[in-house]
Amino acid sequence: MVHKTDIEIARAADKKPIQEVGARLGIGADDLLPYGHDKAKVTAGFIAGLADRPQGKLVLVTAINPTPAGEGKTTTTVGLGDGLSRIGKKTAICIREASLGPCFGMKGGAAGGGHAQVVPMEEMNLHFTGDFHAITSAHNLLAALIDNHIHWGNALGIDQRRVAWRRVMDMNDRALRDIVCSLGGVANGFPRETGFDITVASEVMAILCLASDLSDLERRLGDIIVGYTRERAPVTARDLKAEGAMTVLLKDALQPNLVQTLEHTPAFVHGGPFANIAHGCNSVIATTTALRLADYVVTEAGFGADLGAEKFMNIKCRKAGLSPAAVVVVATIKALKMNGGVAKDALGAEDVAAVEKGCANLGRHIENVKSFGVPAVVAINHFAGDTEAEIAAVKAYAAGQGSEAILCTHWAEGGAGAEALAERVVALAEADHHGFAPLYPDEMGLFQKIETIAKRIYRADAVLADKKIRDQLHAWEDAGYGDLPICMAKTQYSFSTDPNLRGAPTGHSVPVREVRLAAGAGFVVVICGEIMTMPGLPRVPSAEAIGLNDLGQVEGLF
Amino acid sequence: MVHKTDIEIARAADKKPIQEVGARLGIGADDLLPYGHDKAKVTAGFIAGLADRPQGKLVLVTAINPTPAGEGKTTTTVGLGDGLSRIGKKTAICIREASLGPCFGMKGGAAGGGHAQVVPMEEMNLHFTGDFHAITSAHNLLAALIDNHIHWGNALGIDQRRVAWRRVMDMNDRALRDIVCSLGGVANGFPRETGFDITVASEVMAILCLASDLSDLERRLGDIIVGYTRERAPVTARDLKAEGAMTVLLKDALQPNLVQTLEHTPAFVHGGPFANIAHGCNSVIATTTALRLADYVVTEAGFGADLGAEKFMNIKCRKAGLSPAAVVVVATIKALKMNGGVAKDALGAEDVAAVEKGCANLGRHIENVKSFGVPAVVAINHFAGDTEAEIAAVKAYAAGQGSEAILCTHWAEGGAGAEALAERVVALAEADHHGFAPLYPDEMGLFQKIETIAKRIYRADAVLADKKIRDQLHAWEDAGYGDLPICMAKTQYSFSTDPNLRGAPTGHSVPVREVRLAAGAGFVVVICGEIMTMPGLPRVPSAEAIGLNDLGQVEGLF
Repeated sequence: MVHKTDIEIARAADKKPIQEVGARLGIGADDLLPYGHDKAKVTAGFIAGLADRPQGKLVLVTAINPTPAGEGKTTTTVGLGDGLSRIGKKTAICIREASLGPCFGMKGGAAGGGHAQVVPMEEMNLHFTGDFHAITSAHNLLAALIDNHIHWGNALGIDQRRVAWRRVMDMNDRALRDIVCSLGGVANGFPRETGFDITVASEVMAILCLASDLSDLERRLGDIIVGYTRERAPVTARDLKAEGAMTVLLKDALQPNLVQTLEHTPAFVHGGPFANIAHGCNSVIATTTALRLADYVVTEAGFGADLGAEKFMNIKCRKAGLSPAAVVVVATIKALKMNGGVAKDALGAEDVAAVEKGCANLGRHIENVKSFGVPAVVAINHFAGDTEAEIAAVKAYAAGQGSEAILCTHWAEGGAGAEALAERVVALAEADHHGFAPLYPDEMGLFQKIETIAKRIYRADAVLADKKIRDQLHAWEDAGYGDLPICMAKTQYSFSTDPNLRGAPTGHSVPVREVRLAAGAGFVVVICGEIMTMPGLPRVPSAEAIGLNDLGQVEGLF
Repeated sequence: MVHKTDIEIARAADKKPIQEVGARLGIGADDLLPYGHDKAKVTAGFIAGLADRPQGKLVLVTAINPTPAGEGKTTTTVGLGDGLSRIGKKTAICIREASLGPCFGMKGGAAGGGHAQVVPMEEMNLHFTGDFHAITSAHNLLAALIDNHIHWGNALGIDQRRVAWRRVMDMNDRALRDIVCSLGGVANGFPRETGFDITVASEVMAILCLASDLSDLERRLGDIIVGYTRERAPVTARDLKAEGAMTVLLKDALQPNLVQTLEHTPAFVHGGPFANIAHGCNSVIATTTALRLADYVVTEAGFGADLGAEKFMNIKCRKAGLSPAAVVVVATIKALKMNGGVAKDALGAEDVAAVEKGCANLGRHIENVKSFGVPAVVAINHFAGDTEAEIAAVKAYAAGQGSEAILCTHWAEGGAGAEALAERVVALAEADHHGFAPLYPDEMGLFQKIETIAKRIYRADAVLADKKIRDQLHAWEDAGYGDLPICMAKTQYSFSTDPNLRGAPTGHSVPVREVRLAAGAGFVVVICGEIMTMPGLPRVPSAEAIGLNDLGQVEGLF
């Protein structure tokens, strides 16, 4: 059988007008702001009118620790959504928007794959509805206002050496990581060291994704700490009177985007915060809107369950009052083999022992998910080379953990290939455990929260942090930030902070290098290891191969 | 009589669905890509199908040298468009998109004013349909590819000291004018001096506005000179294989935007190149599309006629094969008084003598316009304080020049206030002079072209340029760029290069400070005086007052 490529499948899609997609959820044409014929924003006015509606059931798709073999989390999110639609459930999916920058570095889209895709795929990987550009503008307006304030007399007494707000660009551009700005003389301000991050790393992105409405957005933007005085008193965006103009720049971006899967399941694609220095989930406003319109909402979180699901539960669900009904942990035979110690170039051969060994990673994620009081099911995202024996090994392992592993073929077959998973998810969700609780209470100390995550999720023995870091955490507690949740930034490749330690390591410790206060987003970022906030381009960027073909179609982007 | 503010009038607008606006020009709903309910892009496919249609008549609105008193060029463009619609002509207007950056510095929109506005005004002054963001992305992708190429071995031998391509941002941010990038060690590349311009100053913006279609766009992008080798050989975007990906980023932006005036005249709002280092007109593709759909197309060009009309004729019309049928020169009584030597705070009192003196400026613009073989009419954009005697003085002066000055009240009365102007424009256009010709032939030498503009338009005695500049021009001629037109960058406030020399100066000379080759846009920029390509914010930026009111409406932007 000759498989079509993702882009060939996407181009052949029989898209419905976006008004028909909205109608499946009861959204009228007047409540949609169309962007072309296949994309729309759902108006803030319509969303405000939904506040009293009951919410449907929320299903999180997460995964084992990622490997270069790929897991297919978005693909499974889409497949499960279509599977739920097929078995008669009114379903919506909620995923993140793609960052433009990486598209020109390494190939790879963010709209699923095979027959489990969201369309229009090309536009989702380019400008889409402009949300990230709006975030870039709002972020950089604040940056310009900071330097402008200093230039015109610095009435707030901002210490130029302690400006904490960098600039952003939705581009992979290593040359902008570290710069000196304001050179060239008096008219250009005071020279200082600074730099650019990629837009998805902006605190404005995290804020947009956690805000409940425009006034909450404006309040959070005002809370952003842009730097400190010589006396180390924080200076906020509100002190610069920046939050109103930033809100104006973001008013359209806050409205969630509606598109569709290949099988016409409504898909909200909105927001895309980094999964390391931010929480890595689509927007709260998209998720809560979907929950008020659909019986089932399938969403995903970034990286593996140790990072993505943990933050989804402890940050997003806690703050938005969400209660997930079931969790799907995605695994592939190849990724389990890699977690079992097989090298990437040896994944082709059957190796049941390696699969079994790699299942330790899967097992720990299942256990962790259950510790939040939410039932878990494993989705084996099927690849052509998987053998019966390997699949049987995973099924047996999951059963031994009091869970279940279900083989899914949505990549090749669309929603039909995820019907069994959909049935199982419905059974779990309708059992209605009502057991969800975050891992730690708001009132726990900040350092104790870090320890709780490290010990209960990562299974580390200890958290290592020097006095300066502990003092900083105490100072934030004294300043009233002690009730914030923790946003861990560590490698996604391991439960530990060592990316090469696959499987289910124990006996390790978690060294904290740095802590940052994201007062607008409302979390404390805890950095354990090297975190890249501005990627670079590779030796041969995919940009070189990207272009329009003679039909005006985009080539080389995927 | 209490006048409503611009924003009050705009909010009270009775907008028609954009499909109805398109239908007035015969554009079907399927040929429009809607952005909300009141904005749309006209599809490239529809435009391609218009190639064989006859073109309507093109009317340029230009002005006397601008003063702080304001002239109302866009307001008159809109008023004339509505006036032509009222007298039964199938009309479209073509204006530029607004830059986001300045909105947060000084108040002021770019959608006309009073009862002669284009709507939705707020969105036009914010993100609109995202064109400028797309240009920013395409520009900065090229910048990232340059530094990435150098980082990975610099096979093309780009001299890091001779990188000519800066980065851009649609923001007023003086701190980015001069920077050192790539600091921080080996992983971040080779440190070098560079900086940011505002997006409207990007050569990509000029290219988008001059391209006839996607393949012409791609060719022009490839022609961009990004820098030079140590041997001073040019390195182009094509050498970096950048033009394909840049074209992909710009494919939607190249499709013109359709909106409407308060009186529902279709308005194409597309592109917005700087009027100093670029040519300052809306896109060729919007103008030619409008001409194939309407009997009359009213457009404008940046700054006064010495800069705007000259470039419109010698760059845009020459390159796009356009032939303007009539030119409207906008003047106000106050601006004429300022050109006649009155200070800004003394403009309130009647001063017929000053008006008469200032008319010398108007007269020279009329003469210049006629020298292109196009008939000219003067529009007096009426302000409440203008006296009968002052208006009579302008009318008498214009008559003495073999032209006519018509009092227009579109600001207060909409299209009805510009009907007399519309009738006169139709009479001039239908007389069909067929006399249009650019000022100089393609094959004239580059320096001779500069002299021709300086002597015939600015009425200077001489052009001053040192040997280095003349040698550079000769080198470009030898390299095959000799047939390009000239894009003058000088002060807009005077015919001369001294901004304080109002009226109609003679005996001055034009010193050329620098010349730049915009090989993609297809012109040679000649810089005479200080040219700001990245504005700063004022002491109290308007951003501080911008915000959403309780109704969710934007306040403080205008």
